[in-house]
Amino acid sequence: MFYSRAQSCMLAAGYLAYLLVGALIFQVLEKDAERLQQGITFRMKEDFLKNFTSLSAVEVNIFVENLMETIRRGIYPAENEFSDEHNNWDFSNSFFFVGSMLSTIGYGNLSPKTAGGQLFCVFFALFGIPLNIVFLQHIGKMLSMVCERLAKWLYRKGVKKKTARGLTLLFFLVMGILVFLCVPSVIIRKIEGWSYSEAIYFAFITLSTIGFGDYMIGKYVTFSKQYFLFGSGWLLQ
Amino acid sequence: MFYSRAQSCMLAAGYLAYLLVGALIFQVLEKDAERLQQGITFRMKEDFLKNFTSLSAVEVNIFVENLMETIRRGIYPAENEFSDEHNNWDFSNSFFFVGSMLSTIGYGNLSPKTAGGQLFCVFFALFGIPLNIVFLQHIGKMLSMVCERLAKWLYRKGVKKKTARGLTLLFFLVMGILVFLCVPSVIIRKIEGWSYSEAIYFAFITLSTIGFGDYMIGKYVTFSKQYFLFGSGWLLQ
Repeated sequence: MFYSRAQSCMLAAGYLAYLLVGALIFQVLEKDAERLQQGITFRMKEDFLKNFTSLSAVEVNIFVENLMETIRRGIYPAENEFSDEHNNWDFSNSFFFVGSMLSTIGYGNLSPKTAGGQLFCVFFALFGIPLNIVFLQHIGKMLSMVCERLAKWLYRKGVKKKTARGLTLLFFLVMGILVFLCVPSVIIRKIEGWSYSEAIYFAFITLSTIGFGDYMIGKYVTFSKQYFLFGSGWLLQ
Repeated sequence: MFYSRAQSCMLAAGYLAYLLVGALIFQVLEKDAERLQQGITFRMKEDFLKNFTSLSAVEVNIFVENLMETIRRGIYPAENEFSDEHNNWDFSNSFFFVGSMLSTIGYGNLSPKTAGGQLFCVFFALFGIPLNIVFLQHIGKMLSMVCERLAKWLYRKGVKKKTARGLTLLFFLVMGILVFLCVPSVIIRKIEGWSYSEAIYFAFITLSTIGFGDYMIGKYVTFSKQYFLFGSGWLLQ
């Protein structure tokens, strides 16, 4: 079954609309709950830093435990000022989350914490994952059409039919590895300051939809930025 | 293509052997690196707890940052004694990790941290994911054979052909939802002390191979056990 150009556009637009609406709904469901948790964490850290010299070792250890629990919940209490700016559920993050969910990568750097968000996640993915598969199959079909045309063009230029098919396949294989594995690896390596093995590992874990979430684009950048902000904050105090 | 019983057994045994060998290799590659990291973390925490009353707020904050970085690397410094017992890469964890990787769930609660482990991960999954798909397709084919036999049996008992097919499909749908969604949800809810929405959410995130890793079986149990151990350790001191 091949689609017309209008149907292709409809499918792409429908998929995009589904992603956008999902991202918005997750934002509405999760944003306030996270802000609340961030506030609690920030006050806990603030109280601790005010009084730590008068605390016992047991109390300090309990603080460390609470901090671990907080990080497990996805709150990174690195900043020294509690602001509305650093919310994990801003629109771009929410959109990235929805995309990683529907492709079943599921990095898990962000995940719904409220009961409403979790149930919506189940229903949203129930229809979204098949939609994502249909969309990817469509792209695959379009690519195979391009592949066929290229083979025909080579055949008309005087290349043998078998050689033309072989050359086309090789071209797509090499292009696929370049576009989806090598180029992202090189770019990620530069931007994130990872090693080659880390960059290839990240690209593979993403492409295979395993998505451990141990390496995240921008996480290192954000971390170092936070570290820098925190350092300069202390200096100015 | 249908397999004979011998071929079925071979496929299952081959898949299991692949998992076992993979688990062992990951253990060899990752165990020592983690132990080293655990030791560093433990000593950092120990030093901190000895001297915290003489430290400045800046130094305490840097300790908190280091702790966060440690947790991001998968080390949970909850215990007060550094022992060889609590290694994430014991055989059962390593096996669970390999299984979650090949099914592309990729919870990410455990992931290779060494360059060797990461590269082996890429090569292992490159052949393991197709093997896992073949294995699951085989199980699917066997189930559809059982489905067909049930429909034929109903037909012979005097049920109309269409009704027999419909009943069989309904039976498998209900059984599937029960076995893979409802029963695990109820059991997980009891063992882990989660709410119904959390349990269904976990079962769905697993089945869909999204695998955020925000909820992990045994994580809560381990956490509370560690908390208890830590508490009694302090009392006995």
